[in-house]
Amino acid sequence: MRAVGLIVEYNPFHNGHAYHLQASKEAAEADIVIAVMSGNFLQRGEPALVSKWQRTKMALLNGVDIVFELPYCFATQKAETFANGAVSMLDAVGTHCLCFGSESGDISDFFRTIDHLEAKQHLFNENIKQFLSTGVSYPKALSLAFGQLPDSDKYLDLAKPNNILGLEYIKAIKQQKSNVIPMTIPRKNANYHDQDFTSATIASATSIRKAIFADSDGKSAIDQYVPKATKQLLNEYLQFYQVFHQWENYWSYLQFRLIHSSPEELRNIYEMEEGLENRLLSAAREADTYLEFMQKIKTKRYTWTRLQRLCVHILTNSKKEDMAMISEKASYLRLLGMTTKGKEYLNKNKAHLSLPLISKLSSFKGKEINLDIKAARVFSLGLPNHLKNKMIHQEYQQPPIYIK
Amino acid sequence: MRAVGLIVEYNPFHNGHAYHLQASKEAAEADIVIAVMSGNFLQRGEPALVSKWQRTKMALLNGVDIVFELPYCFATQKAETFANGAVSMLDAVGTHCLCFGSESGDISDFFRTIDHLEAKQHLFNENIKQFLSTGVSYPKALSLAFGQLPDSDKYLDLAKPNNILGLEYIKAIKQQKSNVIPMTIPRKNANYHDQDFTSATIASATSIRKAIFADSDGKSAIDQYVPKATKQLLNEYLQFYQVFHQWENYWSYLQFRLIHSSPEELRNIYEMEEGLENRLLSAAREADTYLEFMQKIKTKRYTWTRLQRLCVHILTNSKKEDMAMISEKASYLRLLGMTTKGKEYLNKNKAHLSLPLISKLSSFKGKEINLDIKAARVFSLGLPNHLKNKMIHQEYQQPPIYIK
Repeated sequence: MRAVGLIVEYNPFHNGHAYHLQASKEAAEADIVIAVMSGNFLQRGEPALVSKWQRTKMALLNGVDIVFELPYCFATQKAETFANGAVSMLDAVGTHCLCFGSESGDISDFFRTIDHLEAKQHLFNENIKQFLSTGVSYPKALSLAFGQLPDSDKYLDLAKPNNILGLEYIKAIKQQKSNVIPMTIPRKNANYHDQDFTSATIASATSIRKAIFADSDGKSAIDQYVPKATKQLLNEYLQFYQVFHQWENYWSYLQFRLIHSSPEELRNIYEMEEGLENRLLSAAREADTYLEFMQKIKTKRYTWTRLQRLCVHILTNSKKEDMAMISEKASYLRLLGMTTKGKEYLNKNKAHLSLPLISKLSSFKGKEINLDIKAARVFSLGLPNHLKNKMIHQEYQQPPIYIK
Repeated sequence: MRAVGLIVEYNPFHNGHAYHLQASKEAAEADIVIAVMSGNFLQRGEPALVSKWQRTKMALLNGVDIVFELPYCFATQKAETFANGAVSMLDAVGTHCLCFGSESGDISDFFRTIDHLEAKQHLFNENIKQFLSTGVSYPKALSLAFGQLPDSDKYLDLAKPNNILGLEYIKAIKQQKSNVIPMTIPRKNANYHDQDFTSATIASATSIRKAIFADSDGKSAIDQYVPKATKQLLNEYLQFYQVFHQWENYWSYLQFRLIHSSPEELRNIYEMEEGLENRLLSAAREADTYLEFMQKIKTKRYTWTRLQRLCVHILTNSKKEDMAMISEKASYLRLLGMTTKGKEYLNKNKAHLSLPLISKLSSFKGKEINLDIKAARVFSLGLPNHLKNKMIHQEYQQPPIYIK
C-alpha cells in the first residue's frame, strides 16, 4: 500500500483541504493518506477552534486514513522545528511521500532555492544579521535577506508562508536523511492570511474562523466553504461543549498567570527573551482583553505569531528546561484515529514502525507526552467549569477514533 | 484623645459589630476608635465579600474613626501571627487599649489562663504532641491538650474561636512588651460559626453571607441584621462590580494554577506540607467546583481554614521564601480611611508613630506591601474582565477614604 503524507492543522477542515487531499493522493498515486496534525494548540500560537478529537473526525470523514498528533513540542514552534517533528513522524510510519501545498507549486523551485541558499550561505547569513539589527522580525529579515541575494527573483518567493514551510519540510528531509519523497501542489485561490471570502468554494481557514466568530449567522455563511461533515462536527461540538475555542477564552488565565508571577519565573518560560517579561507584565496590568494585550506587546521585532506562541507556553508553563530536551525528531506516534484502510496499513507495517505507536495514554510515559497532556488540560480551561474535566477524561480514555 | 483599638474583618459590618464598637468605646472611655482590618483576603482563607475600600466605608459610617489595613502576610495566617501583626500596629499608632469580643467576656480569665499555661507549659506541649500524633488538626489538639491539664474547667474554654484569638492578642501584647491595655467584652448572641439566623437583630457574618449568596431575596433577608449603611454599600458594590466575591469566583484560577504547575513548584508555596501538593493536584483534576475540591482535599489533620489559607497562597503565588522574611511585627501602617476626628488624632500623633504611615501606594516600597498589592490584583480576578483593571487602578490611586 502506497501512502501519501500530509502535514495539517484542519482548523477546521475546509474545501481547500479536501482539494489538497485529493490532488495529493492523485499526484502521489497513493492508496492511503496519512496526516500528521497539530493537537489542541497550533503553529500560530492559537487554541484550535475545536479539540483534536473532533478535528480527527473531520479528517477521517473527508478522506484521511490515519491521523497522528504532532506533539506539542513541535506543533507550537517556528517552521523549522514544526517541520522537523512532522517529517520525522511521516518517515517513522513508512510514508512514501509528503505532499504539501505551496504558493509556488513546483517542487524543483524548492530544490533550486535550497541549493542557491547553500551556495550563498555566508552572504545570506550576513544579510539576515544586518536586517535583524534594523529591528525587524526574523521571518521578515529572512525574506529581505533572500531578496538581496543575486538573482533571487529566479527562486522561491520567501515572503509566502507556505513556500517557507515547504522549504523547511525539504530541509528536514535532507537533514534527517529521510526516505520520504517531497512533492508539492499549487494552493488554490485562498491565501493563508486571507481574512475575507474571495472565492465561491475555497476560503482560508482564517476567513472561515472569522465568519464563525463574527456572529451566530456566520455559521451558515461558511456552508459553501466546508464539507458537510465539518459543518455537522462543528455543530455537534458547540452543542456539547458550548463554545468554540479562541484566545479570548484563555485571556483571564493568561492575565492571572502574568500578574501573580515574578519576572524571574517568567524568564524561565520557553521563548521568553530578556526584557520581554516586563513588557508582558505591564501589558497584563492594563489590558481588559486578549486583543488589547497583544496590541500592547506587539513590536516590529516580534511577529504576532511569535508572541502568541510565547503566550501558549506561559499558559502551559513550558519552561526552557522542559523544551531543551526536545530532539529534532519525534519520539512516539500518537494515533488519534484511522479508517478501515488505515488500520489495515498499520497492521501490515506494525513491525516496521521506527517509533512506538501510542493508542492509549496510560501505556506510555515521557516528558514530551506530558507536555501534550498538559496542553490538553490547559485547552479544557476554555470550556464552562462543569465540562472541563469531561474533556480531560476523554484525553485519557478515548481510544483512537475508528471510522469504517 | 483616648483611642480604643479593634481588630476586625467586617465581612460585612453588621449589628454585632456595631454593638462591639459602642461597648468597646464605652468600656475604654475612648474618644476615638481605631480599627486594624484585614484586606481583601481574610483570616479564614477566603476572599472578602466586597473590597477593603467598601468595607472601610462601612466601618467609617458606623463609628470607626481610623481604618488601617492588616497586611496580607498577617491577615491570612493562623491566630498567633494574625494577632502579632494587628497588635503591633495598634501599638505603633499609640492606641491606649485593645478591646476584643470573646465568649468568656472576662479579661481576668485570659490572664489566669496564660499563667496556667505557662506554669504547665511542658505538660501542655507534651499533650499537644500526643494529640497531634492521633492525626487531629492543630487547633483541635490544642483544645484537647488544654482540657487534659488539671483544673482546666476553671479557665478559658479554648474550644471557642474568639477566646483563642483573645488569648493570642494578650500573648502578643506580653511578648512585644506593648503598652496597649487588653480589654474584653462578651459577644452577643451569635456564635462565630453560626450558619443560620438565631436572634432578631444580631447574626454572625457567616449567616449573613450565607443569606446574601442564597438567592437574590437573601439581600433583603439581611436587613434586620446590618446597619443601613452596610446595606447601601453592599448594593452600591454589586451595582458597580456586578458580583460579591466568594471562593467559587476564583476556582477556575486555582484549578488552572494547580494543573499547570509541577509538584516542585507547588512545594515552594507557603504552608504547603510534604505530600499535600499531590493531594491538591489530583483533586484539581477531578473537581468541577471549589466546594467539590475542598471536600476532596479535607482530612482530619487539616482544618478547612488551614486549607483555604493555603489555597489563597497558591493564588497569590506566595512562597515560603517570600513569607520567611516576615517579622513578628508589621513594618508600616497603611491608612485605608478616616473620619474628621480620626484625622485630628493622626495629625496630633504624627510625630509619635513608630511606623511609616502610608496614604499612597506609590510613596512606599517593600516586600510586605508587594504581597498586599498582589493580593489586590488576585482579588480583582473575581470580577468580570472589563472591571478587573478598574479595581487595580483604585488600589494605586485611591487616597484614604475620608468621611466627615
